[in-house]
Amino acid sequence: MIRIGIDAMGGDHAPRVVVEGAILAAQKFDDVLLKLVGPEERLRSLVLECGGDASRLEFADAPDVVEMHESPVEALRQKPRSSIRKLASLLKDGQCVAIFGAGNTGAMVAAATMYLGLLPGVKRAGIAVAIPVGQPPVILIDVGANVQCKPAHLVQYGIMASEFARRVYGVERPTVGLLNVGEEEEKGHALAKDAQELFRSAPISFAGNVEGRDIYRGTTNVVVCDGFVGNVVLKVSEGMWERVTEMFKHELAGRGGGAGAGAGAGAGSGAAALAQALAGLRARFDYNEYGGAPLLGVHGTVLIGHGRSDAKAVASAIRWTREMHRAQLNQAIVEAITAMPVDAGGGA
Amino acid sequence: MIRIGIDAMGGDHAPRVVVEGAILAAQKFDDVLLKLVGPEERLRSLVLECGGDASRLEFADAPDVVEMHESPVEALRQKPRSSIRKLASLLKDGQCVAIFGAGNTGAMVAAATMYLGLLPGVKRAGIAVAIPVGQPPVILIDVGANVQCKPAHLVQYGIMASEFARRVYGVERPTVGLLNVGEEEEKGHALAKDAQELFRSAPISFAGNVEGRDIYRGTTNVVVCDGFVGNVVLKVSEGMWERVTEMFKHELAGRGGGAGAGAGAGAGSGAAALAQALAGLRARFDYNEYGGAPLLGVHGTVLIGHGRSDAKAVASAIRWTREMHRAQLNQAIVEAITAMPVDAGGGA
Repeated sequence: MIRIGIDAMGGDHAPRVVVEGAILAAQKFDDVLLKLVGPEERLRSLVLECGGDASRLEFADAPDVVEMHESPVEALRQKPRSSIRKLASLLKDGQCVAIFGAGNTGAMVAAATMYLGLLPGVKRAGIAVAIPVGQPPVILIDVGANVQCKPAHLVQYGIMASEFARRVYGVERPTVGLLNVGEEEEKGHALAKDAQELFRSAPISFAGNVEGRDIYRGTTNVVVCDGFVGNVVLKVSEGMWERVTEMFKHELAGRGGGAGAGAGAGAGSGAAALAQALAGLRARFDYNEYGGAPLLGVHGTVLIGHGRSDAKAVASAIRWTREMHRAQLNQAIVEAITAMPVDAGGGA
Repeated sequence: MIRIGIDAMGGDHAPRVVVEGAILAAQKFDDVLLKLVGPEERLRSLVLECGGDASRLEFADAPDVVEMHESPVEALRQKPRSSIRKLASLLKDGQCVAIFGAGNTGAMVAAATMYLGLLPGVKRAGIAVAIPVGQPPVILIDVGANVQCKPAHLVQYGIMASEFARRVYGVERPTVGLLNVGEEEEKGHALAKDAQELFRSAPISFAGNVEGRDIYRGTTNVVVCDGFVGNVVLKVSEGMWERVTEMFKHELAGRGGGAGAGAGAGAGSGAAALAQALAGLRARFDYNEYGGAPLLGVHGTVLIGHGRSDAKAVASAIRWTREMHRAQLNQAIVEAITAMPVDAGGGA
């Protein structure tokens, strides 16, 4: 049994959608045991209300919640009984092997770093996101754990994400690009320039600089950037996808279809085709399909979800949490990081 | 007559598309006189070949070209007879009042900064791009002139882009957001945190932090970021737009339509509707429609085009160069910058 802890209070639509997602996942995977963390009584009654099988779920009581707007480190200190802090302690105590939460990202990162600790040799944890541009997806790291990066952090991100691509997506020799403003070596700010040499001496397939558009072209398997830039990339993509979808629906409405993805009754076949195309695009591109992003570099398997996750996204994230755990990624990361010379960003 | 200098050798498809674009623009606007800069003989024969009216165009001979991959400052020094350097000198000597080039962006910025000089009080020039999310567009600054920003540079970008939104797009009191990884004040890297206070004391409508997705939601009229982040934002958007368009065409092809925007003969009405919707989206979202991005903060009117500009994009950029010049933007920028206290990033 793979025991996975879930922050039932994490995300904009918690706890209901988290409970619904957990019920979905419990039905689908009979080798996982899900432990819902939050106000126990409330969660128990919510499971019943949602028609879930309570015997497939466990509960860990945590009456407090770290809100989305709270300062992560302060909130964790001031709320020792928060669901995020409890989640981390469950993993630390061996009551589960993996955790997932869609709440305050900074608090998830801080709790994992402070209570679980970094893997041997790792200098900073990084959040990796699989961008669904094709099979395999492009791994973008870091998307927000570390907004003030040093060159060695970037190189370690390249190493960790390479192991992620290899172990979880089966890419034999993942190529790694450094996100920059141009392909030439001398381009970019001090961080990007200083990182070049370290990257070249790292035990990865470094492909040099890549540009923003390369992320969606799949030029390399892995794209490395600091957490500030990665966070902006992710949110810009999200905003643009929303906008394009909206415009598409507008076109659809103008042709007699409904505003939803399904063509309304009485819509012409043109509108129906548009509605189908939109649904097709959405299935291939919607971030909700992925659900969770691993925090690489900490002990245990830690997945972070999008605040706006729905039940399907939660269930999908639980599936990925399970995959990640089975891939024994951390062992591979420790081997790769410690194999690297100290002066090239290694930690041995 | 508004005399505009054009780098005929700038861009991936130069000089042909530049000449074609100039011919288009000359036909459309009878108050502009376009001066094509490049190898004169070659340009003259190209104008004839394209069926253009040579009497509406002027020429300035410049036999050399700064290539896209060249280091800007070095290339400008080593090639005194390059079209970009000639372009800047035409503006400096008063032979034209505005210039446009779609070549090496770094070289355009360096030439403008070195040969034309910064406006009084301005610390760094910044490239502003109008993102077509609606009317008025959202102004993103800086998208690549200055990858190593200080807080005062960001604040001045906010001031300059506010004047741009006001003078060129008629926004009376433009709101300005600082691009960050979260809305809360304490979020982000040192640059973003340090800039907060300066922004609050600046003579603009500062709306606080905005996130990547806000760019496409039009949350504020202006979004400020450093040139590294802005360049990534622009290229990620471009890459995602390409990818979505491609997937859309794939959906279209699967329904019996052609791969192009126009539905092939024999395609069903569903495919035809999809093709129309794609064309509709493209018209509202394609960067080619905008063509040029102003370099704010230098003497004269300087517009920078996308390397992949086609003739339509060049013509559109020439139109914007004309608009920008008529808006007397620089005068407004100097007034706003010098009105700001020196310790708050002002230059007086």
